[in-house]
Parts: sequence; structure tokens; C-alpha cells
Amino acid sequence: MENDGLIYYNGAEDFAKKINGPGSFVLVMGNTKTAAIPGITAAGASAELNVYTPPLDAELVHTGRIITLDEIPFTPPFIPTPGLITRAVISMSDFREFYVDAGIDVAPVVPHYRVGFGSGGDIRTGKAVSRVKEIIENAKKVGAEIASKSEYIVIGETIPAGTTTALGVLLALGLDMNGYTSSSMNTNPHQLKTSVVMEGLKNAGINGSCDAIKAIESMGDPMMAATIGLCIGAKDVPIILAGGTQMAAVAVLLSKIYDISKLNIALSTTRWVAQDKTSNLFGILKQAGVEIPVLIASLSFAGTQFEGLKAYEQGYVKEGVGAGGISAIAMVKGIKKTDIEQAVENMYGMMVGGK
Amino acid sequence: MENDGLIYYNGAEDFAKKINGPGSFVLVMGNTKTAAIPGITAAGASAELNVYTPPLDAELVHTGRIITLDEIPFTPPFIPTPGLITRAVISMSDFREFYVDAGIDVAPVVPHYRVGFGSGGDIRTGKAVSRVKEIIENAKKVGAEIASKSEYIVIGETIPAGTTTALGVLLALGLDMNGYTSSSMNTNPHQLKTSVVMEGLKNAGINGSCDAIKAIESMGDPMMAATIGLCIGAKDVPIILAGGTQMAAVAVLLSKIYDISKLNIALSTTRWVAQDKTSNLFGILKQAGVEIPVLIASLSFAGTQFEGLKAYEQGYVKEGVGAGGISAIAMVKGIKKTDIEQAVENMYGMMVGGK
Repeated sequence: MENDGLIYYNGAEDFAKKINGPGSFVLVMGNTKTAAIPGITAAGASAELNVYTPPLDAELVHTGRIITLDEIPFTPPFIPTPGLITRAVISMSDFREFYVDAGIDVAPVVPHYRVGFGSGGDIRTGKAVSRVKEIIENAKKVGAEIASKSEYIVIGETIPAGTTTALGVLLALGLDMNGYTSSSMNTNPHQLKTSVVMEGLKNAGINGSCDAIKAIESMGDPMMAATIGLCIGAKDVPIILAGGTQMAAVAVLLSKIYDISKLNIALSTTRWVAQDKTSNLFGILKQAGVEIPVLIASLSFAGTQFEGLKAYEQGYVKEGVGAGGISAIAMVKGIKKTDIEQAVENMYGMMVGGK
Repeated sequence: MENDGLIYYNGAEDFAKKINGPGSFVLVMGNTKTAAIPGITAAGASAELNVYTPPLDAELVHTGRIITLDEIPFTPPFIPTPGLITRAVISMSDFREFYVDAGIDVAPVVPHYRVGFGSGGDIRTGKAVSRVKEIIENAKKVGAEIASKSEYIVIGETIPAGTTTALGVLLALGLDMNGYTSSSMNTNPHQLKTSVVMEGLKNAGINGSCDAIKAIESMGDPMMAATIGLCIGAKDVPIILAGGTQMAAVAVLLSKIYDISKLNIALSTTRWVAQDKTSNLFGILKQAGVEIPVLIASLSFAGTQFEGLKAYEQGYVKEGVGAGGISAIAMVKGIKKTDIEQAVENMYGMMVGGK
């Protein structure tokens, strides 16, 4: 069912009725050394700069500008982080904001909770995240604390190479989902991702399937552990996992650890992910038996004058920083799709200036 | 000059006229392994629990309760953290709050900036803080960011054993200040502190004097580096260093790194420090030639029914968590001294309950 820029699946119309009040947006920041593998991610101008993606996203969303670096180096056209969409929605709505360090290399100049212990490892080693249970426990406390002052929470993520670790945990769980995860590039490097994951599974000694904690420890990333903990801690309020196939993987992991029928939980992402022919968001949820409500924000930059934004229509970026979810929930709250698109275009115009 | 619970020194009356608007309170959290030396500090129930003092202080000030531990173990009477005073003032006034991790072991369940890289070392080794210049640079960005939304900033600290590291840097700078720094105990363990510092100076190879950066690297703590950076970054607004001899040491260090005549800076602490016969706050400032304005909050718990609070009148605790400075500035803003004392007593009564 479609309605004013929103598309509902799996009973999401009923879920949307639970959205009342300002609500809180939570951005979970993580790094994994997997992002340094050449060709694996476009979320960062280079392998060296990937470590800055999470703090710069947080700074952009919170302040409207970047602080930790003076400027972002890029080759024109500048394809912007989806954090620009998130920032646009934040600036035109009344969400509270919270930031969570799940395990990052460079701290943002933005106040944040810290639940993790530094960036995750290269999953090719089969050693991805240490202290997973501790991260979950810390995040449970933070989730409860945020929920205590929230009508509902929208959880987004920023972690370069997160779709590769998503594939990693899905295969570690024994699910037959090769080719199901999305990519920030327009040509999804499935072959590279699969070979990376296979190497990791071999080194982790996972032959067949393992449990969710072991899957994260071996093949996941810190964002997953933190987001799982946040959801469990925030169990008393509606939760929106704002992301594509990465958040679908989190939902699958969560369902193995916690009885999600006790949660009011949905997933929300962009049309660019939902309609992506190089990945299969709904396949992940269906095959894993986690058919939670899904809300799609039907944003479009087809009409923009900017090449950098048009790239979204050509399959670049697609999702991240909770862009789809926060847009969808903002629309549920009454903000117009076209106003979000216009705000993004205005902000982008100011960012690139005469460039 | 005394006025309604406030005592002014060094031209602080004029400084007080610059205090307009809500202002921001900044709590800088740090740990140093120096705190594990038996007998060096009372800021924490035991050496093992010292690492929890900064996060619990932050949680108490921000939320009115502790989160990271279920309860604080203590032997009656429970002498409370000065964070209780800070919390009382926060709850009855309109300060904005910011929290800064300068280098701690356990993160609080409170959103905070992170400028440091873990706790400082035992100063007996002569290796106290690595990456001092990086901490200062990070903190400068945070200071500028906070100042951009603040009329003025009040900077407090929470770091067990901070008076010992204060002595450490003062002697490292070549100042003759043995016996000048305060203590959280009623019997100031000067002999122990001096022997700890002497061992550190020897191991650091400091024979005579060194510069401020080297003093912090060898004999200081992460809080000092962070606070210096915050002050430099916040140079466009009035700054109140809220603390006793630890903040006096920070002012001295800052004066060696930056032209403080360009800053609008004052120090503010409690009567318990200002009148302490076992330390010499004004001696530190005078002898170092850093005669910035000083505002004293003349709080008293002489009339309380609670032994735990009366202990403050017997020389226990004295200061910390910005308690004196935030009380003084609250009084400048018009809050009554007796109302602060009553609020602390009420909160303490609720904390200890029937105990």
C-alpha cells in the first residue's frame, strides 16, 4: 500500500499508528577494518578516510557541518553521504538526537554514549568483534535510558563495509543468502564480498552454522552488537531499525537472541534499497522468518539539477545514517516527501557551492 | 568582600558582572592509575572502585541517580561525592550540561564528548599521559563547539588522585609548592604525595624544571590536558575553572602554554578549600603569578542532621565535580546559598533513606 511517499509492508500501517510525539533518533557509529579491503565500500573517499565516515556523519547530522576534518576530499561529482538526508529531516522536524559509539576509531565532536571498545577487525581473520556480550550489556543500559525519555526510537547506523559484515553474519548463521546484501556502490561487488566472507568463515572454523553471538564475534561488526543491546534495552517503546540489508541482518541476529514477538519493532529504509535488483531485503527477512513491519520512504532525486544527488537514482549509496527510516517516520509525522527532497537539494547546493 | 554566600578575590566582582544567561556546565572526567596507590585518595570506596568515580559522578549530575553500578558500597556514615552538590544546583537552575571524557576506564551512561585515549599512568613511573598535544587539540575543537552555544562555561572535574597529580605538575614546573595541594581526606597525606611525586620526577628525569607539556606527560593527568584545550577553544566566552588546587594547577599550566591575559578566566571553589589549613590555593596562584579572579562559594553543612554531610565541615571531600564553582555561579545568577544547602540535604536524605 502506498501513501504520500510511504510504502507499507507486513502490517506496517498498524505499526505507523504507534508513532506519536517527537520520538528519538539514535545514530550507532562503528568501524570495521574490513572497510580497508580495496573495492569493498564507497562509504568514504579512500581506505584511510573510512575511519572518519562515522564521526563526520554524526557531526553533519548534529550540527549541519563537519568538524573533525576541515573538508571532505572528493572527485566531482560529489556524491553525498545519506547523512545529508538525515540532517535535512532533523533540521525540519522535532526528533531528539542521540549518538552511540559502538566501536569507532575517531570520536566525533558530538556528545555521545560509548558502549564499545574500538573498531572491529577484518572479518577475513574470522575475528571480528571481541567483547560482544559486554557491548550488548552496555547498550542495554543506554537503550533503557534513551527509551525512558522517548515515545519511540529510530535507530540508524554509520559503518563503512557494513553490508559485507551483514553478509558475514547471515552466512555464519547458516542462511543461504549469498547476493542478498546491498552495497553503497552501483555495481554490487558480490564476488569480492563472498570471497571475503568465505575466507572469514574458514578462519573462524564455522562450517555450517553458529549462534548469533559467535556470528558477530567472528563475522560481524560492533554496530550489530550495540544495536541489538539498544533494542533490548528500549523494549518498552516502539523501535524502528532505520536501514536496509544491514538492519535486516541485525533483526535476524536479534531474533536469535531475544523473543522479538515481545518487541514493537519495524524496519524502515529507502526505495533505493527496497527496489534494488542487486540485493534482496525482503528475502532476508522472509527466509529468516523475521517478517516484521517494513516502511519504505519513497524518496527520489530524479528531478534534481545536481549530478551528485542524481547518483542516488543510479544505484549509488542507497541508504545509511538512518536516512530512509528517519524520512519515513518524518512522513508518518506529517512532513512531506517533496519538502524533504527540497531540503536535501538546498543543503547540497550550499555544501558544494560553486564547485 | 563577602556577599550572600559569595566571597570575591582578585577582582572577581567585575568578573561576576560578565555572568549573564543560563551558561554551560562542563564536567571533565579522567582516571589516573596513581589513584590505585593505597592511601592517596578518598574519591572512591576502594582502589578497584576508583575507576567508577567519574562515570558515577556524571550519571548522578545528569540523571540524579547512578546507572553503571547498582549501588555504591560504603561504610556508614556515607560521605557523599561533591557531585551531589553539583546535581542539586543543576536541578534547581538552568545550566546546559556537557560531559567530556579526557581519559577514563569506564564510560558513563551519559552522552559525552571524548577527547582522550584512556586513563593516565601511575605518576611514579614518570609516564603519566601520552598524546597530551592530541588531547589538547581535540579538546580545543570541543571547547569551541560548546562555547558557540554558551554565554559562559563552568568547567569542573572528576578524577580520583587529582590533587597528587596537581602536586606532580607544580613541582615538575620547578615551583616550590610542597604541601600546597588539597586532599579529599581530612588528614592531607602530604608525605605520601611528596614521595610519590619525587619518585615520578626521578623516573621522568626531571631535575629542576620542565615545560608544561612535559610536566603533564610525566607527572600530570588527562583531565589537565583536556581542560587546557577546552579553555583555549572556548576563548571567546568567560570561563570559570570550577575546582580547588587541581584547577589552580591547570591555570598555572595553561598560563605557560597560552597568553591567559587574552582569556576571560576565573577560578571558583568552595570555602572548604579556600579556608583549608592543610593546603594553599592562593599561594599556588600568587607564587605562579597567575592571579586570576577567584569566587568562593561559602557553603556550609554545619547545621545538617546528617553525619555524612557534616563530614564536609570536618575537612572531608572539600571540593570536586565543579561543586564549588557551579554553586558560586548559581549564586551570582540569584540562587540562594541556603536553598542549595537545603536541596543537597533533601537529596542526601533520599539517597541514604533509612540507612
